[in-house]
Amino acid sequence: MSKIPVLETFGPTIQGEGMVVGRKTMFVRTAGCDYQCVWCDSAYTWNGSEKHRTRMLSPEEVMDELVALGGNRFNHVTITGGNPALIGDPMRRFINLCHQQGHKVGLETQGSRMQDWFFDIDDLTLSPKPPSSKMETNWDTLDRIVHELTGHSVNFSLKIVVFDNEDVEYAKSVFARYPDVAQKYVQPGNAHTDASGNISAYLLERLEWLFGVVISDAAFNSVRVLPQLHAMVWSNERER
Amino acid sequence: MSKIPVLETFGPTIQGEGMVVGRKTMFVRTAGCDYQCVWCDSAYTWNGSEKHRTRMLSPEEVMDELVALGGNRFNHVTITGGNPALIGDPMRRFINLCHQQGHKVGLETQGSRMQDWFFDIDDLTLSPKPPSSKMETNWDTLDRIVHELTGHSVNFSLKIVVFDNEDVEYAKSVFARYPDVAQKYVQPGNAHTDASGNISAYLLERLEWLFGVVISDAAFNSVRVLPQLHAMVWSNERER
Ligand code: SF4
Ligand code: SF4
Repeated sequence: MSKIPVLETFGPTIQGEGMVVGRKTMFVRTAGCDYQCVWCDSAYTWNGSEKHRTRMLSPEEVMDELVALGGNRFNHVTITGGNPALIGDPMRRFINLCHQQGHKVGLETQGSRMQDWFFDIDDLTLSPKPPSSKMETNWDTLDRIVHELTGHSVNFSLKIVVFDNEDVEYAKSVFARYPDVAQKYVQPGNAHTDASGNISAYLLERLEWLFGVVISDAAFNSVRVLPQLHAMVWSNERER
Repeated sequence: MSKIPVLETFGPTIQGEGMVVGRKTMFVRTAGCDYQCVWCDSAYTWNGSEKHRTRMLSPEEVMDELVALGGNRFNHVTITGGNPALIGDPMRRFINLCHQQGHKVGLETQGSRMQDWFFDIDDLTLSPKPPSSKMETNWDTLDRIVHELTGHSVNFSLKIVVFDNEDVEYAKSVFARYPDVAQKYVQPGNAHTDASGNISAYLLERLEWLFGVVISDAAFNSVRVLPQLHAMVWSNERER
């Protein structure tokens, strides 16, 4: 495969979550995922519903789309999915191309697959999925990825989306398992990804709950808790 | 002076803004400011209205209060004001004490005064005030502080609170003046710091406006835009 399965490109917009929250960025969303989280907010990347929208693009074609959308108004590109870690060499070439053009590159993946181009990413988020997702974490794989990223001094974070108390316990166990990872985040889950109206009151209520959890527990002393800003401002609008 | 003028200590809570947004922290708010910003959200630190609440505390007494409030549920202390940079040696000793106890220390100041204990701070925010504040920036002083912090490899950021288009231009001029400062933030101002009810809809509207400003202008490509999360969740509640 010399091309990237692209479901959508959009931006410039603001990264609403995680380790570079607030940063202006372009998004590239790849198609395909090895997981099927029950609350997936981008299930259209893997459930077949938008198969007709998926295009096989070369790294140069993806970059052309970003420049057509963003002109000179960006210097950061976020690759998300689906699981972009399913893609091999074409992704490495796309990341190189971004760097050649002076852009930093962020990536989010659940940590179920390793790619050696992870070492080239400027800000990488591993987001293992908690029990509420109904997925099982492959700890051997995650251990290996964390070990490799640490060994290569990659700027990476662990981010756990949390819906309920069982997920809180899962987040604690992940953070305890990797004490040497400095950047750790929890984020309240959005159970209303299908809602068409304003969900900011709901999201703020969930954020207040998670603030309380973090404040009350010494296990979260070094963990940062952040919402999804884009969902608070733009609700569930696509391509924002 | 061997003591610190403390207006309030509180926490653990979540740092709602800036470079360590989302991090659990304790707050120490000092009394006194050399500025009088028209929209100051903590004018009670300098306008005399809460003079009776200000206490002169030794570094050890401040730490005792933090431990009484937070127990083992924190490892970060944020010093804010007023302008904590008005305080000399007692602040240096307090910062040392925090480090001895294993706590990281954050500080926010407008950048009107230099202290050599700035070099000991783990995350330092310089927040020069835009025209809407009705204050004048002393550029010589700010230049010197930025130069010293850079020379000492301090982990610091520039953060500009923005109310209107004139403030946007000011933010651009600050960021252009200091191209080597990697961490740059803009934050929508809160014009309703006296409101007693829920102001989240207003704050989200201002955030959406500032997202738009940042997205549309190449001058903000490397600037992060963040709200005040604590104000969205807890409105204007004191000591939250
Ligand atoms: S890993 Fe991510 S993209 Fe894949 S199903 Fe889960 S939430 Fe959706
Ligand atoms: S510098 Fe800060 S504390 Fe001082 S008046 Fe301005 S906003 Fe208030």
